[in-house]
Amino acid sequence: MDKSKILIQLDTDVQPSVFDRVVAVDAGVDHLFSYGGVKPEQVEFLAHGAIFTRSPNDLRRTAIFIGGSDVTIGEQVLAKIRDVFRTAGLSVSVMLDSNGSNTTAAAAVRAAVKHMDIDTANALILGGTGPVGQRAALMLARNGAHVRIGSRQMPRAEAVCQAIRAKVPNARVEAVSTTSSADGPKALEGRDLVIASGAAGAVLLPQKIRATCSTLRVAIDLNAVPPVGIEGIEIFDKAVTRDNTVCYGAIGVGGTKMKIHRAAIAQLFERNDLVLDAEEIYDLSLRL
Amino acid sequence: MDKSKILIQLDTDVQPSVFDRVVAVDAGVDHLFSYGGVKPEQVEFLAHGAIFTRSPNDLRRTAIFIGGSDVTIGEQVLAKIRDVFRTAGLSVSVMLDSNGSNTTAAAAVRAAVKHMDIDTANALILGGTGPVGQRAALMLARNGAHVRIGSRQMPRAEAVCQAIRAKVPNARVEAVSTTSSADGPKALEGRDLVIASGAAGAVLLPQKIRATCSTLRVAIDLNAVPPVGIEGIEIFDKAVTRDNTVCYGAIGVGGTKMKIHRAAIAQLFERNDLVLDAEEIYDLSLRL
Amino acid sequence: MDKSKILIQLDTDVQPSVFDRVVAVDAGVDHLFSYGGVKPEQVEFLAHGAIFTRSPNDLRRTAIFIGGSDVTIGEQVLAKIRDVFRTAGLSVSVMLDSNGSNTTAAAAVRAAVKHMDIDTANALILGGTGPVGQRAALMLARNGAHVRIGSRQMPRAEAVCQAIRAKVPNARVEAVSTTSSADGPKALEGRDLVIASGAAGAVLLPQKIRATCSTLRVAIDLNAVPPVGIEGIEIFDKAVTRDNTVCYGAIGVGGTKMKIHRAAIAQLFERNDLVLDAEEIYDLSLRL
Repeated sequence: MDKSKILIQLDTDVQPSVFDRVVAVDAGVDHLFSYGGVKPEQVEFLAHGAIFTRSPNDLRRTAIFIGGSDVTIGEQVLAKIRDVFRTAGLSVSVMLDSNGSNTTAAAAVRAAVKHMDIDTANALILGGTGPVGQRAALMLARNGAHVRIGSRQMPRAEAVCQAIRAKVPNARVEAVSTTSSADGPKALEGRDLVIASGAAGAVLLPQKIRATCSTLRVAIDLNAVPPVGIEGIEIFDKAVTRDNTVCYGAIGVGGTKMKIHRAAIAQLFERNDLVLDAEEIYDLSLRL
Repeated sequence: MDKSKILIQLDTDVQPSVFDRVVAVDAGVDHLFSYGGVKPEQVEFLAHGAIFTRSPNDLRRTAIFIGGSDVTIGEQVLAKIRDVFRTAGLSVSVMLDSNGSNTTAAAAVRAAVKHMDIDTANALILGGTGPVGQRAALMLARNGAHVRIGSRQMPRAEAVCQAIRAKVPNARVEAVSTTSSADGPKALEGRDLVIASGAAGAVLLPQKIRATCSTLRVAIDLNAVPPVGIEGIEIFDKAVTRDNTVCYGAIGVGGTKMKIHRAAIAQLFERNDLVLDAEEIYDLSLRL
Repeated sequence: MDKSKILIQLDTDVQPSVFDRVVAVDAGVDHLFSYGGVKPEQVEFLAHGAIFTRSPNDLRRTAIFIGGSDVTIGEQVLAKIRDVFRTAGLSVSVMLDSNGSNTTAAAAVRAAVKHMDIDTANALILGGTGPVGQRAALMLARNGAHVRIGSRQMPRAEAVCQAIRAKVPNARVEAVSTTSSADGPKALEGRDLVIASGAAGAVLLPQKIRATCSTLRVAIDLNAVPPVGIEGIEIFDKAVTRDNTVCYGAIGVGGTKMKIHRAAIAQLFERNDLVLDAEEIYDLSLRL
């Protein structure tokens, strides 16, 4: 008989995400081991517990999920896990989805490409330095889109562009300021896609500025709690046309995000050597 | 197929209660997410995870349980959750039972009213400012009983009376001092019911003082570890007559408490909009 | 119908061991309640939750597992639990396996006695003051072996000898220094069994020193990550002969450790009054 499916949730926030736990359960995990406040220096011991407890044939029934609001620390945790596995010569599958960054970004990009070709898209990411924004920008740029990273702090937007170019050398990415409302029209110029993934409660794109952008075809807002970042979008919007623009809200995209998230969790248990990060999760989303 | 039943235990103590976890499992919960050291400011994120992960039809398969030794913080957590649900326009059912206050109090009152009419009862609550005592007093007063709140600190007893009057305007409640053993007889005068819910290890009512109270018909002690608060009661007592008084100990009442607790947990999964606090839990106990 | 099997994992480290959690699941536990950072002063409340939630007949379906890297604190937790049970007159079964000390030590000793008689064995424990080393020494000494406790700090090795003599008055134990490589040959003199259970990453017995010991028949290294403590042993070694010595590595012994660990967890649910510590776990291992 197959062993129980165990998912080890390593969350870098004090309280491990309820969201990620519910999705894990709904993806068919039998036993969920949730850890909060996980620090990179604690990872070795935890990862050893994952690889030294079941026979090699059964290791595909154990997997690790990395979550929490800080993608940078999440990436450190992932790097540390890969080190531990390399040294030990054993592994279980691992997924990184800090702040839902990979699954939400993949869902947003999947929603967009229902309405346009990704390789000719001209995108603007508002809140582009946040965890979801960075990942959406990476997925778009890696597939040929031209991407503007919008931020109130230009140095941070520039750093995101550099990080994307490090992974995708021919990426067409550009930092744009969105400090004042006057920056809005400039950043929007020529864009057919806008994705807003900023902090909760901040309006990043007022309705009247959006109305000035005649090229805009798709607008996606990833904020689950009103007020949303792109004024006029409702959180339940799912391909609703408003002002000639196809609109998606967080819950409208949420169904796809959930499907991707669940499918990624389920995939972890097919092998014991998968590493699911932005690229893998986007690729996986294409098969759903 | 129905989704797994998920209960999210938000415990305000550092270590989430083993007691509440066992009861949740025995009430049929499939997956229990236990959080310790929960602070009101962490609640929004956790509550969002509860409401944004399943379709509206499936939200009744997710619920929240609030526990921990501090009823005041538990109530703040409940208030915060209700805020979050109101803002989001989505909800799951929630139960408050910090320190077992609601289920234990309901069980004690249910035990008492097997032997007397609640609306004519004259009760004394020893340790009446503690979480269980406050709830028992509220349930009794709301159903017409005259209730004395006994405490070593009169100002705290007065505050409890005021809190009850705020919820039940016509409540007949009265603060009484139980500082010295000489206060005993005065506080007991005319009482037919005494419930002791003080801290572990303190004798609140010595046997010889109790013997002076000819009106006493029912005595209930809610301390699970000897020495109990009402001298002479054994923790396993369940309607045992001692000195012409029907006696209940913590374990004697515990069976009913457990039944109420489990029934309340089970009820959470019938809808997605229940809020089970003192009144609802007492009302629910009437149907068992 | 039988109640769900609940195991309460009390881990004295900040993050409860993944290792112990996986083994618990694979031993058939239905619901695992994992606690990290458990302090002796928190135990009373947690233990009450274990004993006051199910009927006496069902208490054998709840059990407690004590883990964490510090055996001394683990023993304090166990002592506290036994106090609480004694006072309450109720109990659930308890197992102590801080740092895997009891199950790993039992597995190492079981491996050794496949190749020699335990009562005439002459053992050297390298890293003998660590949690696993102390337990292996106790199991060997209790069954008649002569045991040298090797440590870089003689006072700590002496303390371990005294602790063993307190439990086994006629124990033949001796502290030996392993500070410099020159101490190696002296400590090894006349030994037919060496068990290394030191900290990860330290070579405790270089290959060329080991080659000087003609009496050596069995060498067991309990370090799961290279470099191991006994140079030349591979972590997957399982009765592999190297230089005329039968060698075991951590993973080679790990199968037996796991079998003992799982059997011990399973045994907890047969009664509600077992206390599984070094002696009981070694005795249990003899029946596998």
